[in-house]
Amino acid sequence: MPISARRLQRDFDTIAGFTATPGHGASRPTFSPTWRAACDYVIAEARAAGCELRVDAAGNIHLRPESHRREDCVWLSGSHLDSVPHGGNFDGVLGVVAPLEVLRAAHDDGRDVPLELVIFAEEEGTTFGLGMLGSRAWVGTLDAAQLATVCNAPGQNYLEAGAPHGVVVDRLTAEQFRPADCLGLVELHIEQGAAMWKNCQPVAIVTAINGRRQYCVELHGMANHAGSTRMTDRRDALAGAAEAIAAIERLAPTLGGAAVATVGQIHCLPNATNVIPEHVTFSIDFRAPADKILETGSRQLEGLVREIAGRRNLQATCELVESLPAVAMDSGICNSLRRAAERLGHAPLPETTSGALHDSAILAPLLPTAMLFVASRDGISHNSAEFSRLEDMVLATEILAEVVR
Amino acid sequence: MPISARRLQRDFDTIAGFTATPGHGASRPTFSPTWRAACDYVIAEARAAGCELRVDAAGNIHLRPESHRREDCVWLSGSHLDSVPHGGNFDGVLGVVAPLEVLRAAHDDGRDVPLELVIFAEEEGTTFGLGMLGSRAWVGTLDAAQLATVCNAPGQNYLEAGAPHGVVVDRLTAEQFRPADCLGLVELHIEQGAAMWKNCQPVAIVTAINGRRQYCVELHGMANHAGSTRMTDRRDALAGAAEAIAAIERLAPTLGGAAVATVGQIHCLPNATNVIPEHVTFSIDFRAPADKILETGSRQLEGLVREIAGRRNLQATCELVESLPAVAMDSGICNSLRRAAERLGHAPLPETTSGALHDSAILAPLLPTAMLFVASRDGISHNSAEFSRLEDMVLATEILAEVVR
Repeated sequence: MPISARRLQRDFDTIAGFTATPGHGASRPTFSPTWRAACDYVIAEARAAGCELRVDAAGNIHLRPESHRREDCVWLSGSHLDSVPHGGNFDGVLGVVAPLEVLRAAHDDGRDVPLELVIFAEEEGTTFGLGMLGSRAWVGTLDAAQLATVCNAPGQNYLEAGAPHGVVVDRLTAEQFRPADCLGLVELHIEQGAAMWKNCQPVAIVTAINGRRQYCVELHGMANHAGSTRMTDRRDALAGAAEAIAAIERLAPTLGGAAVATVGQIHCLPNATNVIPEHVTFSIDFRAPADKILETGSRQLEGLVREIAGRRNLQATCELVESLPAVAMDSGICNSLRRAAERLGHAPLPETTSGALHDSAILAPLLPTAMLFVASRDGISHNSAEFSRLEDMVLATEILAEVVR
Repeated sequence: MPISARRLQRDFDTIAGFTATPGHGASRPTFSPTWRAACDYVIAEARAAGCELRVDAAGNIHLRPESHRREDCVWLSGSHLDSVPHGGNFDGVLGVVAPLEVLRAAHDDGRDVPLELVIFAEEEGTTFGLGMLGSRAWVGTLDAAQLATVCNAPGQNYLEAGAPHGVVVDRLTAEQFRPADCLGLVELHIEQGAAMWKNCQPVAIVTAINGRRQYCVELHGMANHAGSTRMTDRRDALAGAAEAIAAIERLAPTLGGAAVATVGQIHCLPNATNVIPEHVTFSIDFRAPADKILETGSRQLEGLVREIAGRRNLQATCELVESLPAVAMDSGICNSLRRAAERLGHAPLPETTSGALHDSAILAPLLPTAMLFVASRDGISHNSAEFSRLEDMVLATEILAEVVR
């Protein structure tokens, strides 16, 4: 049987029903009853398609055909079912139900497929304050001590909250991810940006997940009377920040690679209508798909802040508070995805890069990994208005099936 | 006897000692013990120089030579002794001790001087949240009902807190300011800006007090993922605000008349590092010495906000929240000040405008009024580092004496 649009639609509808905020988007915190119900639905569907369940000690759920024993080398494909509060019905869910459908379709045909579906625990980072916890714990970049420090709203740490769901601190190391057990990872995800939708690209191959550098910039000038201080006698920290923010916005498109730079946070002191601002703090979130662009861009960002502050006689600091490298996707798997799409009559697939982080970014340094993106209507995500077309998601699922068959 | 620098210095030193924050600037809230002590010192000095005390029902203190009866027509000269928290020792105080010294010097010589010293109550607006309360209540632009709504930190309203200091609600109307009783008002004040100090102008004639328009600007865009939203697909409210703030700063100097425009306050939502800002609110404080400049500038300010918002597909509102007209000083008194300076060998006095508001702005629509400014070192005011040169303040006092003699 081919990939079934009907079954996929039912999966989305059913999982959308598991929410703590009915009528107001998907709210499925990791290890909560709604998250559990969504996982149990997927588990039941996979079991009905002849799959066996395994939960690793980090709390990630694995489902593979009974015909493939634990030691067999298989493809991984998966994503997450936890959501941000009032999130959408496709973020993460697509990457879970697509391999589920591949497993079901194969089972219907009596075909064997070397594919393991993975539901990664706590990708969003809104339940325990840190994203991609399940995948990080599985590959060993987070240890038990770190998992014991991150807490959910009721105050339970990851180990405590996860215990009823299979998290076992003593087995974390023994059950750590072993690259040799896997052929590769393919994650399907919605784009969460507007580019593909706008450019009429239903499905695209992700060639890299952007690296990210975050800065905290502080500008210090001099508070003074907004009425009696001439324009030429001012050291206005907010006017300096405004010039910098405008320059940062202009810089990003000159760096290539669809680099993006965002000033999302600003604080001004004394923040009074009639006082010239003395102190302004703002954030810079800068992302690019290659470390070379990150390097060049960072130098220019820091340079423009220094130049503007110097010319305006403001004291400036520009502190790098986070630096994550760009992660290239595996070219071999990307080629397999391209050829699979060609065989299905959909060549050539456009290429894009992922501005957002995903579980794939955690596994990619260890395992050949690639991603397929599906267009998001108007780029709206983390929002109940999130929408992707069923036919686009079916196409991406067909490409996945073609690659792992 | 001539104007005495020694006595003026003693006045400044003595009044500086009346502060709730010794060693950390002048803190003299209106009707507080330190404010009372400063007033009592000036009253004692004036009485020793043959003056009679009267407190009007609004709480302003009046001191005139006993030789001039209540119905005689005299000059007014005065300012305030209340201070902002941790303020300077010259703001307001100069305008009180200068006429005090004129009265003392005349008394020493046995000369008659038709001059009444006024200590206006609550000029700063930091005790009761609204500035120039005493002068506004005296001229009748604030009534008893309004004075009952403004409260100090301990929660007393102006009428309650002022009662022990002579505020009498029943006599407010009867004792209202009568322009016909006065020849005119001359207020001395420090500039509180850097222009005169920088241009080596010890004393200047104020030809106008700036009018002020204040706006609340709101820009509304769309929150989205800072990683996955291309630069071209954004509706970033903070980037729009930054462009506007930079343009406002560039606009002010093109308007002439030393117009100033300040964005002192900004709020951003959701104000998160990794989310494109959806909603930004910022203030504009725009001041100019002529209503025509205010009119032209306001049109351009509103226009640039509209243009930037339109081009960026942001919704914008630009609400005028305050509009105070510019107040021209009396040209007759300005000429008298010029001629007095000439007679003292200091011609020609430079001219300036006042960016800050003063009690003079309240009386000027009713009474011929002018101001003399004395240079402030580096424009620093509302700060314990506030400083003006004694010799400059002596010169301004000599000009005052020459005019009112």
